[in-house]
Amino acid sequence: MTSPVLPSHGRVRPLGLAQVSLTGGFWGERQAVNATATLAHCESWMERLGWLANFDRVADGTTGPDRPGWSFSDSEVYKLLEALSWESARSGAPEAEAAIKRLTARIARAQDPDGYLNTCFGHPGRPPRYSDLEMGHELYNTGHLLQAAVARLRTAGEDDLVRIARRAADHVCRAFGPGGIDGVCGHPEIEVGLAEFGRALGEPRYVDQARLFIERRGHGRLKDIPLGRAYFQDDIPVREAEVWRGHAVRALYLAAAAVDVAVETGDGELLDAVRRQWERSVARRTYITGGMGSRHQDEGFGEDWELPPDRAYCETCAGVASIMVSWRLYLATGEVRYADLIERTLYNVVAVSPSADGRAFFYANPLHQRAAGRPADPDEVSPRAEAGERAAWFDVSCCPTNVARTLAGLHGYLATSDDDGLQLLQYASCRIRAELPGGPPVAVDVETAYPGGGTVRVRVVDGSDRPWTLSLRVPAWASGATLTEGGRTRPVEPGFVRVRRAFAAGAEIVLELPVTPRFTWPDPRIDAVRGCVAVERGPEVLCVESHDLPDPGLLDTLVIDPGSAPRAVEGGALVRGRARAFPDAPWSYRDRPVDGDGGDWFDVPLRPYHGWARRGPAAMRIFLPLATDLRPSYPPIQEGA
Amino acid sequence: MTSPVLPSHGRVRPLGLAQVSLTGGFWGERQAVNATATLAHCESWMERLGWLANFDRVADGTTGPDRPGWSFSDSEVYKLLEALSWESARSGAPEAEAAIKRLTARIARAQDPDGYLNTCFGHPGRPPRYSDLEMGHELYNTGHLLQAAVARLRTAGEDDLVRIARRAADHVCRAFGPGGIDGVCGHPEIEVGLAEFGRALGEPRYVDQARLFIERRGHGRLKDIPLGRAYFQDDIPVREAEVWRGHAVRALYLAAAAVDVAVETGDGELLDAVRRQWERSVARRTYITGGMGSRHQDEGFGEDWELPPDRAYCETCAGVASIMVSWRLYLATGEVRYADLIERTLYNVVAVSPSADGRAFFYANPLHQRAAGRPADPDEVSPRAEAGERAAWFDVSCCPTNVARTLAGLHGYLATSDDDGLQLLQYASCRIRAELPGGPPVAVDVETAYPGGGTVRVRVVDGSDRPWTLSLRVPAWASGATLTEGGRTRPVEPGFVRVRRAFAAGAEIVLELPVTPRFTWPDPRIDAVRGCVAVERGPEVLCVESHDLPDPGLLDTLVIDPGSAPRAVEGGALVRGRARAFPDAPWSYRDRPVDGDGGDWFDVPLRPYHGWARRGPAAMRIFLPLATDLRPSYPPIQEGA
Repeated sequence: MTSPVLPSHGRVRPLGLAQVSLTGGFWGERQAVNATATLAHCESWMERLGWLANFDRVADGTTGPDRPGWSFSDSEVYKLLEALSWESARSGAPEAEAAIKRLTARIARAQDPDGYLNTCFGHPGRPPRYSDLEMGHELYNTGHLLQAAVARLRTAGEDDLVRIARRAADHVCRAFGPGGIDGVCGHPEIEVGLAEFGRALGEPRYVDQARLFIERRGHGRLKDIPLGRAYFQDDIPVREAEVWRGHAVRALYLAAAAVDVAVETGDGELLDAVRRQWERSVARRTYITGGMGSRHQDEGFGEDWELPPDRAYCETCAGVASIMVSWRLYLATGEVRYADLIERTLYNVVAVSPSADGRAFFYANPLHQRAAGRPADPDEVSPRAEAGERAAWFDVSCCPTNVARTLAGLHGYLATSDDDGLQLLQYASCRIRAELPGGPPVAVDVETAYPGGGTVRVRVVDGSDRPWTLSLRVPAWASGATLTEGGRTRPVEPGFVRVRRAFAAGAEIVLELPVTPRFTWPDPRIDAVRGCVAVERGPEVLCVESHDLPDPGLLDTLVIDPGSAPRAVEGGALVRGRARAFPDAPWSYRDRPVDGDGGDWFDVPLRPYHGWARRGPAAMRIFLPLATDLRPSYPPIQEGA
Repeated sequence: MTSPVLPSHGRVRPLGLAQVSLTGGFWGERQAVNATATLAHCESWMERLGWLANFDRVADGTTGPDRPGWSFSDSEVYKLLEALSWESARSGAPEAEAAIKRLTARIARAQDPDGYLNTCFGHPGRPPRYSDLEMGHELYNTGHLLQAAVARLRTAGEDDLVRIARRAADHVCRAFGPGGIDGVCGHPEIEVGLAEFGRALGEPRYVDQARLFIERRGHGRLKDIPLGRAYFQDDIPVREAEVWRGHAVRALYLAAAAVDVAVETGDGELLDAVRRQWERSVARRTYITGGMGSRHQDEGFGEDWELPPDRAYCETCAGVASIMVSWRLYLATGEVRYADLIERTLYNVVAVSPSADGRAFFYANPLHQRAAGRPADPDEVSPRAEAGERAAWFDVSCCPTNVARTLAGLHGYLATSDDDGLQLLQYASCRIRAELPGGPPVAVDVETAYPGGGTVRVRVVDGSDRPWTLSLRVPAWASGATLTEGGRTRPVEPGFVRVRRAFAAGAEIVLELPVTPRFTWPDPRIDAVRGCVAVERGPEVLCVESHDLPDPGLLDTLVIDPGSAPRAVEGGALVRGRARAFPDAPWSYRDRPVDGDGGDWFDVPLRPYHGWARRGPAAMRIFLPLATDLRPSYPPIQEGA
């Protein structure tokens, strides 16, 4: 079956990618842009920058000290190959298939006879193999090769790419297996690649090697660096850690692999460790957007409650990686909370990154942009992660290909099945044609304008006299949802609402989700947004952009009326706000509170955060300061009382 | 005359270091610890790490790729020499003089015949001279050599160190003068070194070269880097910039040099530019502590109002550099606001760094430590700037020697003179024995327990029948201050209070500053501390440490009563607070505000921030959340109104 993740066990099973197809709407449009624009865009930049030619140079013996690109540039080619594989299977587009063959042929020539494959290390004029486990990314690259091979294997069978990956995986097992190098890669990824490749091939050696890497980690095998060993999660063993820390993408790729290994080896303790880490990290180290990573310095998680909106890193790749972890936990447990976080992250991290034309991307996804940045040059490589506008490409360009591979296989995350029926997790217009194991065929069409509208219409296409259960996820935010079936409408609570019956052809089940804009209040322990509120609409976080204000400077002084509920308007919401005028003082710390002069109240327009800066660079904020005073909430206490 | 900074012109003149001496108290004790512990501590670490031997290896032709230390390690030796020079002159300690001779001899041997002096570049096995202007720090090192030579020249006359510096400065003028390399150093410092060395020697060529470097900067001569050209202030010409940005120490060393050049060349436009940058940066990019630098990533200023307390960088060196700028602006203008900021920065940045024993230091000075860090090992080099406890030494160890040179010459910042009299700027127990130009000798003793107590007693030692003016700075925070002279007490306002008369011997003037603890309220535009208040006592910012709470976790939930004024207690203050209990929720963003259950009110002890973590690693915070509710401050607005 075709799916990025296919555990041997689990409470629920993914549907195969061939069983689901997006038929338009929010994600269908993005998947189409990904197919027609982003994939070719990525290949063209990698050609232009010599990242593809790096493979030719190794083959031709002409590589050397002037090799362009970072040590992880090979991985971008592999992530693109993964995206192309899902896309080729989805659409049958001949361009995708041709690109796969073209890239595979160039990669094949660069592989050493013993299976080692890397354009940065291990060749004349380059550092020796495995000479920089901390920052060299060799095994990281290989991990992405294996994930690409999984995509190819599950969509097209064993081809050259799969054979290349097998030789590379065998080399890794020889080099790092028992008796080999007693090390781990600074950037986890080989683990998740080996586990899935092992599952796809039915090859337990690869899963064993993944387990070995996971068990080795956290004992200080990697050198200490200024950012500390927590940066690459080598500070605490995976099964002992209480929370995610250090570089967010590293932490999350590692956690995803730990779930895979736990599931394959029946290691409940390891699975519980990741669940525990997920719980605390989601409760205390995650942004309202689902974004993870509070610090630019190490691209990492901060401490509990350290969630600055302006310096939020929230790397796009960390969003992709968070979905990888939650998806695996959902498959293992069937718990709805993991699907809730996936939805939040899809709309407010992954969807934020690509431009409408699929040829520019956000890398970092801050929740507050103080000054509109410079316009991005579509012909320029951005040297940095932060920007006021989406960039065509990056010096460190992990995000575009991560978006590409996620969107190309996105239909795989919409629904799952178990022996009894189908679970609808993410709402998008789509067709589902599945077989339940030992059960009836399940054929439903979903139509919805979600997230713009809250009506989700599920129509049964093929009837059957054998009963099955249709489960619909009611998101945690959706209080007041209703379900209509058989002419009856009833309120439903967050969680799974389940309808069990023998569905007749043409039966329609309608879930109504309340996408009225609403205030959302942060926990008072999140210091950086104290005294603020956010506005959400369905699964979307909204924001104010300077484009919509008479003066961009108002974003610094805007306060909003918490007593006046947000009102829905086309494309977003309105809240009541005013811009207080503050005296420009020589010193910003005073002997009494400054309230500012209240300006006139006006309607402040909010739009979905995922569309910010599409009209050019903007200042922006998600959390809005409240027009409250500083009066105590109780009678003042007498001195000496 | 001996003083670190001696402009040719200015509204006021520094007193010579020989004219002022600290006689105990807060700063006297710190200066004594600096003399008896810190100076030897610095030399011993530099010996141990091979930073001193780097000079021997150049001389012996044995340097190479394995040279230890960063490219700027030479500068630490020069900063120590500067500190030793001030100390030798202050105390006449033979150890200081011996260390100067010992270090100078080793440095002398490493100088090339053409004056070039650097242990990192320009020798066999090392990169060529000036091959990395962006990050190589060659001219930066030379700048510190010149500052050390200034100290030596002004305290001991022309010796070997001064002659070495002359040859180095001449080399720089040849290499980078008109017709030479059209470049600047990535880290400003050569400019301020050349300007002062030029003033000390009466050598206008050096001032001209400083001017040339300043004019060259800001036109993109340095390469773009991921952090952007703002990192090294090569984005905007000095005289056009509106605000400080990028790496804080770089920005401030450059600004100090710009003041020097403006004053020496009568360039009012350039002086005004720095004054304008100071105003906006102090109003919008400076912490309540006086600390500058909001970001770890680039050790830099952030945007206006970007002042996170937890991730505040506030490098100790940036505090030193801020004092360098403000001191020069004060000398040029006589404006009291510059001396106000110096006081704030001395107590709340510079004094925070060294441990009580002078053998450990803070590098970054955050205003909020979420988790108590690990204890520091006194035998270990800290690889990072952030820590929960002061570290003995750092891989990048700029701060200890910067503290050392500042404390060694601190008595130079207490007072200035003009033709008419004496200005007392910083209050410390001290003796002042000065000659006013063409005026009477001025001999006063100051006695005070400041900042622990607010009484400053100035006693005239030698009387005279010629009148002169004693000016006392009343700090901006000191509302309610009084002055007593001739038996009369009167209220005095912030600014300079001036007493003009022919003082008799024994005359006493008493300034009473109100050091009662007080609330200080941040501007509402500082998002990161919205809904919080700080407590100050005189010039000291206070903080809560977990050591003083029954449970360190309370720091996350503590709220304080803004209706109950802070009360003075020995060693600090008490505020009324309580720790609210918040439900541990799986998600921290909710559909209604969470107030938490109010715990019992208790007295929360606050202590001076400069002493935090002296009892071991601690969690700590300066800004305290207010126990206020989220009620709107006006009647709710009706829908549609």
